[in-house]
Amino acid sequence: MEIHKASTYAPVNIAVIKYWGKRDTKLNLPTNSSLSVTLSQDDLRTHTTATCSSSYQHDSLTLNGSDQDISGARTQACLRELRALRQEVEAQDSNAPKLSELPLKIVSENNFPTAAGLASSAAGFAALVRAIANLYQLPATPTVLSRIARQGSGSACRSLFGGYVGWQQGELDDGSDSVAYEVAPASHWPDMRALVLVASAEKKDVSSTAGMQQTVASSALFQYRAEHVVPKRMKAMEKAIHDRNFEAFAVLTTKDSNNFHATCLDTDPPIFYMNDTSRAAVRMCEAINKAAGRAICAYTFDAGPNAVVYYLADDEARVAGTFKSVLGGVTGWKSDIKTSDALEGMEHVGDMLKKGISRVISTRVGDGPRKTDEHLC
Amino acid sequence: MEIHKASTYAPVNIAVIKYWGKRDTKLNLPTNSSLSVTLSQDDLRTHTTATCSSSYQHDSLTLNGSDQDISGARTQACLRELRALRQEVEAQDSNAPKLSELPLKIVSENNFPTAAGLASSAAGFAALVRAIANLYQLPATPTVLSRIARQGSGSACRSLFGGYVGWQQGELDDGSDSVAYEVAPASHWPDMRALVLVASAEKKDVSSTAGMQQTVASSALFQYRAEHVVPKRMKAMEKAIHDRNFEAFAVLTTKDSNNFHATCLDTDPPIFYMNDTSRAAVRMCEAINKAAGRAICAYTFDAGPNAVVYYLADDEARVAGTFKSVLGGVTGWKSDIKTSDALEGMEHVGDMLKKGISRVISTRVGDGPRKTDEHLC
Repeated sequence: MEIHKASTYAPVNIAVIKYWGKRDTKLNLPTNSSLSVTLSQDDLRTHTTATCSSSYQHDSLTLNGSDQDISGARTQACLRELRALRQEVEAQDSNAPKLSELPLKIVSENNFPTAAGLASSAAGFAALVRAIANLYQLPATPTVLSRIARQGSGSACRSLFGGYVGWQQGELDDGSDSVAYEVAPASHWPDMRALVLVASAEKKDVSSTAGMQQTVASSALFQYRAEHVVPKRMKAMEKAIHDRNFEAFAVLTTKDSNNFHATCLDTDPPIFYMNDTSRAAVRMCEAINKAAGRAICAYTFDAGPNAVVYYLADDEARVAGTFKSVLGGVTGWKSDIKTSDALEGMEHVGDMLKKGISRVISTRVGDGPRKTDEHLC
Repeated sequence: MEIHKASTYAPVNIAVIKYWGKRDTKLNLPTNSSLSVTLSQDDLRTHTTATCSSSYQHDSLTLNGSDQDISGARTQACLRELRALRQEVEAQDSNAPKLSELPLKIVSENNFPTAAGLASSAAGFAALVRAIANLYQLPATPTVLSRIARQGSGSACRSLFGGYVGWQQGELDDGSDSVAYEVAPASHWPDMRALVLVASAEKKDVSSTAGMQQTVASSALFQYRAEHVVPKRMKAMEKAIHDRNFEAFAVLTTKDSNNFHATCLDTDPPIFYMNDTSRAAVRMCEAINKAAGRAICAYTFDAGPNAVVYYLADDEARVAGTFKSVLGGVTGWKSDIKTSDALEGMEHVGDMLKKGISRVISTRVGDGPRKTDEHLC
């Protein structure tokens, strides 16, 4: 029995203007636009193979070797939309095999620990949508695919593009204009580096899906953020990226991370994603910038205690090297990162980091999903 | 040589609608009104004796046995205003001794550890102003004295009254309408209890004087809090107190504490007063309320990691007793607080509290400054 097959890699993205809050929970339509940096698939990626065959009994999805429930409305929405696009292909070309009628078997693997609290669902849904689009040989653009992936997991839409990626909130009720777009390709500003400080496993305070709607419902400050703070920052961030202005990028990134976590704290009951280890990472970044006399690194935190520190290649020793002076003992360091001298007066902060950080991931800005002939099944 | 002498006790107050941000740093005029509960002087108080004599060389102030610098503009403003009021007395009564011309010697003692991070400057300035007003036999009302004490330390104005005390921000440029007022005396709602969880000594992140102006200058959310969030909460809180509605009081208290700390986190650079110990205190309060099926306790945090937990006398076992089940080993417990059973599933939170809390102070709502004949010199 014939088995049709296609595979892709898809990247993780880490937002610098944060997505937090939906105006439509079914369609994953956000209350505000957001912007992210796509990270290199050399370091962090989901690898997904999509296959279909009349020999299969039903649709199935495996992640890192374990069966996943795909009956959820979000996964179903992605599969339904992709099959509808395949039906258009089949309607236009009577020779095209009727793949839309065959059960799908999807096999997926992350090359990073899921427990690390990295935005694995973004890479996961982007890879799922991209792999099936490849399998179906859809003529769909990344923009169209971003609209579909968004319904699986909001921030997944941004992983359909490489480099610097916006997600416009859109205005239409059906969400058709709530899609990702390329602000600039990775090649526009290839020097961007990212150091992920993975905090020791601690149970997550509240899932981001539940948390963001609690914030929408109860924070007295949230609406002001969505309507007044973020729109200005989106424009300023796009300009910073176009201008390759790292200081502006850094100030906006840190401010928006803190602003997002402020609305979490203003939620009833309050949501705390940052902990004492996160605070130590903030203080270390501040000390690095102070020693440099300008902003050479920017921190951002998603819905968890991990810090992601952005910096430029030229400042690697002063940024990553300073963290390595404290955290040289944990796994994940690339050998080409030189250890710098520890900063004076930061012993207490260093001790906090040593106690709370279990590994690092050192990476950079990267491109969008990559087609591959390496199949997982 | 004759020495004129008068003494007072003055209370600590802990805000439930927070003061954070000045519109005039010289006059200590706030960006928003605030509201506090005055705590009992049986447990927490500043004791101050004001004396004056022609035998003194110059004005002086001693706190807990060590000389204080009184050359600062704030202390000087208080002394200047009080002397001006004394001059009015002297002008009207030619027999009144010219005390306004004599150097002052002020001796002050706190009955609680200054290091505990409690709002000692509020009680301190309230006591200083009240003691000198007594010494000068001023006919000034607590309202007038609150206007003077405000210039020493903003929140000190609220310690001139007992019970439930508001501080209206005022509108005039000279600050003459920025004064404290009694929302309700302690006798209106005498059952209010407070449990202070004193966090182990850790260097304070940023002083509140510096911190609040950093917030005013850099937070994207602060102005919205001051102009839109607090005014509604002031009205709702006054109603909750008039109605003796603890649930409403609790919801407003916790929300406003979190809202204030959210604007701190939104400051550039971010200010963190709450730490992992504070977060554990929040979680324990939430669990206590969940077990009770309604809000029987409310937490609030000032510019530091200490939690202040408000509750009513009837709920003492369920609130203070639950904390005692975890923190029974630290000093400060009153013997009449019964230890309750520990809440299920809160072992991790309990361990965090045990690790981070060094003592407790158990107290209640109390009255305003008390005149005393016990002199400290």
